[in-house]
Amino acid sequence: MTTHPLHRFFWPESIAVLGASPDTHRIRGRLLHQLRENGYPGTILPINPSYAEIEGLRCYESIAAVGQPVDLALVAIPAAGVGAALEDCAAAGVKNALIVSSGFAEEGGAASEMQSALVELTQRTGLRACGPNCEGYYNALGRIATTFSPTVETKDDDARTLISDRRIGVIAQSGGMGFALFNRGKAAGIGFSYVISTGNEADLSMADFLDYMVEDPHTDAVMLFCETVRDGPGFVAALEKARARRKPIIAIKIGRSDAGARASASHTASLSGSHTAYRAVFARYGVIEAEDMDEAIAIAGVALTCPLPDGRRTGIITVSGGGGAWMADTLTDAGLTVPTLSAATQAKMRKLMPSYGAAANPVDVTAQGSNTGPAMMTVMEELADTDELDMIVLITSLASETRVSLDSERVRAVAARCGKPMTVWTYTLPSPFGRASAAGCGLFVHTDLRDAGTAFGKLAAYAEAVARPLPEPLPAADVAPIPPDRSGVLPEWAAKQLLREFLPPSAERLATTAAEAADLAAGIGFPVALKIQSPDLPHKTEVGGVRLGLADADAVREAYDAMLRDVLGHAPDARIEGVLVQKMAPKGHELVIGMDNDPTFGPIMMLGFGGTTVELFGDVVHAPAPLDPPEAQRLLRGLKSARLLTGFRGSAPVDLAPLALLVARLSEAALAHADRIAEMELNPVILHADGSGLTVADALVRLRD
Amino acid sequence: MTTHPLHRFFWPESIAVLGASPDTHRIRGRLLHQLRENGYPGTILPINPSYAEIEGLRCYESIAAVGQPVDLALVAIPAAGVGAALEDCAAAGVKNALIVSSGFAEEGGAASEMQSALVELTQRTGLRACGPNCEGYYNALGRIATTFSPTVETKDDDARTLISDRRIGVIAQSGGMGFALFNRGKAAGIGFSYVISTGNEADLSMADFLDYMVEDPHTDAVMLFCETVRDGPGFVAALEKARARRKPIIAIKIGRSDAGARASASHTASLSGSHTAYRAVFARYGVIEAEDMDEAIAIAGVALTCPLPDGRRTGIITVSGGGGAWMADTLTDAGLTVPTLSAATQAKMRKLMPSYGAAANPVDVTAQGSNTGPAMMTVMEELADTDELDMIVLITSLASETRVSLDSERVRAVAARCGKPMTVWTYTLPSPFGRASAAGCGLFVHTDLRDAGTAFGKLAAYAEAVARPLPEPLPAADVAPIPPDRSGVLPEWAAKQLLREFLPPSAERLATTAAEAADLAAGIGFPVALKIQSPDLPHKTEVGGVRLGLADADAVREAYDAMLRDVLGHAPDARIEGVLVQKMAPKGHELVIGMDNDPTFGPIMMLGFGGTTVELFGDVVHAPAPLDPPEAQRLLRGLKSARLLTGFRGSAPVDLAPLALLVARLSEAALAHADRIAEMELNPVILHADGSGLTVADALVRLRD
Repeated sequence: MTTHPLHRFFWPESIAVLGASPDTHRIRGRLLHQLRENGYPGTILPINPSYAEIEGLRCYESIAAVGQPVDLALVAIPAAGVGAALEDCAAAGVKNALIVSSGFAEEGGAASEMQSALVELTQRTGLRACGPNCEGYYNALGRIATTFSPTVETKDDDARTLISDRRIGVIAQSGGMGFALFNRGKAAGIGFSYVISTGNEADLSMADFLDYMVEDPHTDAVMLFCETVRDGPGFVAALEKARARRKPIIAIKIGRSDAGARASASHTASLSGSHTAYRAVFARYGVIEAEDMDEAIAIAGVALTCPLPDGRRTGIITVSGGGGAWMADTLTDAGLTVPTLSAATQAKMRKLMPSYGAAANPVDVTAQGSNTGPAMMTVMEELADTDELDMIVLITSLASETRVSLDSERVRAVAARCGKPMTVWTYTLPSPFGRASAAGCGLFVHTDLRDAGTAFGKLAAYAEAVARPLPEPLPAADVAPIPPDRSGVLPEWAAKQLLREFLPPSAERLATTAAEAADLAAGIGFPVALKIQSPDLPHKTEVGGVRLGLADADAVREAYDAMLRDVLGHAPDARIEGVLVQKMAPKGHELVIGMDNDPTFGPIMMLGFGGTTVELFGDVVHAPAPLDPPEAQRLLRGLKSARLLTGFRGSAPVDLAPLALLVARLSEAALAHADRIAEMELNPVILHADGSGLTVADALVRLRD
Repeated sequence: MTTHPLHRFFWPESIAVLGASPDTHRIRGRLLHQLRENGYPGTILPINPSYAEIEGLRCYESIAAVGQPVDLALVAIPAAGVGAALEDCAAAGVKNALIVSSGFAEEGGAASEMQSALVELTQRTGLRACGPNCEGYYNALGRIATTFSPTVETKDDDARTLISDRRIGVIAQSGGMGFALFNRGKAAGIGFSYVISTGNEADLSMADFLDYMVEDPHTDAVMLFCETVRDGPGFVAALEKARARRKPIIAIKIGRSDAGARASASHTASLSGSHTAYRAVFARYGVIEAEDMDEAIAIAGVALTCPLPDGRRTGIITVSGGGGAWMADTLTDAGLTVPTLSAATQAKMRKLMPSYGAAANPVDVTAQGSNTGPAMMTVMEELADTDELDMIVLITSLASETRVSLDSERVRAVAARCGKPMTVWTYTLPSPFGRASAAGCGLFVHTDLRDAGTAFGKLAAYAEAVARPLPEPLPAADVAPIPPDRSGVLPEWAAKQLLREFLPPSAERLATTAAEAADLAAGIGFPVALKIQSPDLPHKTEVGGVRLGLADADAVREAYDAMLRDVLGHAPDARIEGVLVQKMAPKGHELVIGMDNDPTFGPIMMLGFGGTTVELFGDVVHAPAPLDPPEAQRLLRGLKSARLLTGFRGSAPVDLAPLALLVARLSEAALAHADRIAEMELNPVILHADGSGLTVADALVRLRD
C-alpha cells in the first residue's frame, strides 16, 4: 500500500505553530495549548520572535530557523500576514499548512484577492493548505488536536460506552457544526477517527479529505457537513471508491432553501449549488443524506454497529405496548415493513409472555414480563433465528441506574449468529448505566424515536443502493463536436438534428414552401402536423405556429400559408428556419425528459410526466448521466405517476423499454456534448399506448456559448 | 367557579390502597411506597386483612372497616378480584377508583367480559373509575403519586432549570409513553401539572381527563398520547373549550400504519380509528400533532415559554455561520420564512460584528464576535424592535460549564417588550450550567435542530388556527328523515333526490321509456346524456349504461333503446329504476366531494380533484361537518391542484363560490342525516370554466341499515 499524499497532514511528526502565544485567551495561544493538553506525541515547534520559550517549549524566531523537517504548520495570525508566512513555510520545506485565520473570501472585496493569492501560492510551491477560515482538525487516534474548538477539551474516548471499535470520520465545511457532530457523537458512544473543518477550501477541499478517509484503515464511515462541493469530479471519484469499499457516507447538505443558500454563500464564500443535482449524485453512489445532527448520529450509530440488512422486514420487541405500536408507525413511515409473524412463531412467543402480551409483531412482552424474567432476551433469540425478519428493534427503558433488560452475552451471541441489524430505543432518557449496558451489547441506543426509524430505513436503502450495479454506459456514439459558432436556443428541428444519433428514427422533415410541405406530408403519411421553426419563437402555439391533424395535401398547403401569415402577424421580425412536417403521433402517455448541465456534477437527467404533475406535485426523478436502460427504468418506476404505465385501474401495462432506451441515449448525448449543451428538454415524449414505441413530439436544446 | 367532578380524583384528601403490601417488588407494594416517598400530604389507608400495619400506617381489613370518607381507591389486585373489590368500594361510599390491574379487554375472551362488568358496575353505582390496565397518575403540585412508574421516583422539580411557571398536563393511553414524556420533559425544564395513564378506559376516558385539565387553573397546555378516542363528542367538546381558552393541546396519535393499528388494538383493546378523521378534527380545533416524543417536548417548550406569533417571519441570530444556514433550511421546511432584513437594519447589525460576519438574516455574529463581547445580546435587542420579524431563534453553544452568551436580564427585558416568541438552539449538547442559564432567561433550549423548526412552525400554525373563526353552520334545512326501509347504495338519481334540498337546481329528470326520454330531453335542451339508474349497477359505463352528447330527439330515442339492450345483455337481472336524462355540462374542472361518516367523529367531508390526482398524489383535504362556505374555500385552496383554479399558467381564475357553497350544504346534509348516511360521493362535480356555476355529474349515497 502506498502512502496517501495527505498522510503527513493527518499524522504529522512535527507541527509548527506560527505566532504561538502563551495567552490561551487568544486563538493562537489556544491552538498550542490544546495540542499539548490532548497529548500530541510529536514535536511541537512554536514560532514567534517575541518569545524564547512558551509552555516550556523552545520558541523559534522564524520557520526558517527551525532547522528540522516540519510536517504541518498551524497558521492563526491575522489575514494580512498569512501570505508572507506561507511563502516562508514553502521556502523552509514545510509540506502542509492549516490556516485558521479568517477574513478571506468569506469577507468579499480585497479579502477575496488575498485568497486568490493563497491559491496561486499553493499551486506554485506545492505546499498543501487547508482553510483559510477553518477550525482545524482532531485526530482522535493520534491525539492530535490542531483546533481551538472547545469540544476537543477532552481525554480518551470513554471506553465503557463506546458502541464499536469501528470509527467514523467527519469532514465539515463549518467548524462549529463539525465539532458539534463530534461532541454529540461521543456522548452517544460513537468512536471517531478524524474531525476536520475545511473552511474556505482555497486549496485542499472536501474531495481530498474524503479520498483520504475512504482509503484510511482507521475510518469505517464518513460524515460530511457540506455547503458546497468545489471539486465535483474529485468528489464523485471518492464517492465511487467509498461505494466500492462499502464505507457508508452520511451527508448533511445545507443551503437547500433560499435563505439557507444566501446564508451559506455569505459565510463560506461559495454558492451552495442545485440541491437537485446533489440529491441525484448522492442517490447514485448510496450517500445517505441526513437532515439533522441527531439523525446523522443515529445513522452513524447503526452503520457502525450493524451488518447490512437483506431486506426491509423489521421485528419489534417491546416492554411497552404503546411504544411498540408507535415504533411500528415510525418504521412504516421510514419505508420499512413490520410484518405479522407466522402462527408458528407467534405460538412460540406467547409462551414467553403474560396472557395480556402480544405476539404478532410488535412482540409486547409487557412491563411485567420484563420484570419477572429475561423475556425480552429469550424472545430476541427466537426471533433472530426466524427467516421472517431482516432487522430487529428492541424497545425498553434504560433509565435505571441498576437494572437493565439487556444481557450483553446473549445479545452479542445473537447478533453474531443471525447477521441481522439490531438496535435499541429507550423511551425514557438513558442513565449512564443504561448506556454502558447497551454499549456492552454492541448496540447503539436511540433516544429519538423518529431517528431510530430513519436510521434503519436509510440503512436498508443503503444496502439496496450499494447492491445495485452502477449504470453501464452505452457504446459511445461517434459524434462530431458542435460547431463553435452555434449558440443559444435550438428549436425542435435543429435540436433533433443535433441529437439525431441518439434519437429513434422518426418520420418528419423540414419544409420551406407550402408545396414542399404537402409533398413531404404525402411521403410521411397523413394525418400530419405543421410546426413553425424559429430560434425567436420558443412558444410556437401562442403565435399560431402549430397546426395539427392535417388530413390531406390540400389541408397541408392551406395550413402552411395560414400559419406563416399568423406567425408573421405576431412576430414580423422572427427568423423562420422552415416548417416541420411531422406525422401525428398515436395516443399515449405524455412524458418529459430533461437535462440540466450542473456546474459541479455535469449532466443531470430529469424524467417526469407531462401536463401539470411536475409543476403541481413535483413528481419528477433526477439522475446523473450516464444512465443505462435498466437504471432508467428503475428511475421511471420511482415516479408516483408511473402507476399510469404499469396497469393503473385495470389498464394494460405499457412497454417501458423504448422510453428507457431514449433516456439512456440522451444521457450519452449530454455527456458527449457536455462542453456545449447546457440544457435539453424533450416535451412531450409520447409513449404510444398501442405499444408501437414513442414519438418525440417537441424538443429544445440550449447551447452554452 | 364550581368544582369539577374529577377534582377529588386528582386532589384526594384520602387514598385507600387495596391489597396494600410491604413488598415493594410487587406493584401493590410499590404503589403504597411511592405514594409515601413522594410526600403525599393526605391520609393513606392501606387495606389488607393480612397486616395490622404497613410502613407504620394502620392497615384495615376491608374498605368497609375504614369508617372515614375515601376519595380514591387504588386497585392493583389480580383481575379476578377487582369486580368484588369495587362493589365493596361503592358500598362504602368511595367516590373514585384507579384500577392498575391488567388482564381485562386487552386480553380478549372472558377477560373482556370482566371489563363489561366493570362498566356496568360504574354506571349502576356512580363510582368513577380510571383503568383498568393503567399506570395511575402523578399530580406534581399536590405531590400525589398513585403510580408504580419508576419515572416518579423523584423529588421536587429542579427550580434552577424550570423554563416557566406555566405547566403542562399529560393524558396517555400508554403508561410507558405518558411517564416517558414526563421523564424527558422534566430534563428539558418543563413543569408538569398532572400525568395520567388512562389504560383501557372502561369508565373514565381521555375526554373526561381533558375536560378536567382544560378547566384546571394549574394546567396551561395539555399533551395527549392517544391510540383511540372512545368518546368522540365529549372529546370534541373539550377541544372546543381548550381552543376558546387558548390552551394548546399537543397530540401524539398512534396507530397510523397497519402494523401500528394492529399493535395498538391488541394492547389497549381498541381500534385506532381513521387517522384521516383524527387529522381533520385536530386541524379544526388547532390541536398540534406531534410525531415524536422529543418533538412533542419541543412544542410544549415553546408553547409554555412563548407568546403566539403574529406571523411566520423568523429571524436567526447565530455564532455559527453553518448553524445559521442550516436553521434557515430547517425553518423553511417547517413552513416559516427567513426574510432578508432591510438595508437599514443590516447596516445597524454590521456595526455589531466582525467584518466577516453576516447581517442579512441569518445574522452571524461569528464565534469571535461572540467571544469578544455580548454581540448576540445587542443584535437580539435591535432585531426584537424591528417590525420585520415575528419570531426569533438564537443559535449558540451551551456546552460550557462556565460561560454562556445569554444574559437573563437582557433576554427577559426583550421578551417582555417585543411580545415575540424567542427560543434557543444549542448545536453542542448543553451543560447543566448552559441549561440553567437559558432557563434563567425563560428560554426553552432545543438540542434537536428539526424539532426547533417544527416547534416554531407549529406554534405559528396554532396561532393561525385559533385566530380563525369556527365555521358557522348554514340555516338548518327542514328535512324529512330517510324512511327506515331504504338501505344500501343509492344510484345517482335516487341520491340526488335524497339530497335535493342541498344541491343546486339542475336540469335532469328520470325517464322510463324512450319516448319519455326524448320529451324530457327536448324540455331540458340538447345535447343531453342518458344514464341507466340501478342499485345493482354501480359501474354504469362498464355495462354500456352511459350515452353522451345526444343532439336531438331521434338520437335520444335510439340511444335509449340501444342502452337498455346493452345493459340487460350484461346484467339481465339488474333492477332498472329508469334512465336519467341530463343536460351535457359545459367544460370545466372536475372535482370530487365525498363524505365518510366516522364512527368516532361523525361526518368528515372530503374534497379533491377528479382524475388520478387523489389516487396518485393523495391531493385531498378533509374536514369535519359542518363547513361554512369560507372554510370550504380555505380548504379548497389548500389542495396542491387548487392552483389550476386560481390562475395556473396564465389561465383565468374560476369563481370558487358555487363549489364552496355546495360543500357547505352537503356537510349540512351529512349532519341532518348523520344517523343514516354512511357515505356520499359526488364525482365528478364539474366547475364550469365559463363561470356559469357547476354540474353534479354523478352522485352516490350509501345508507347504513
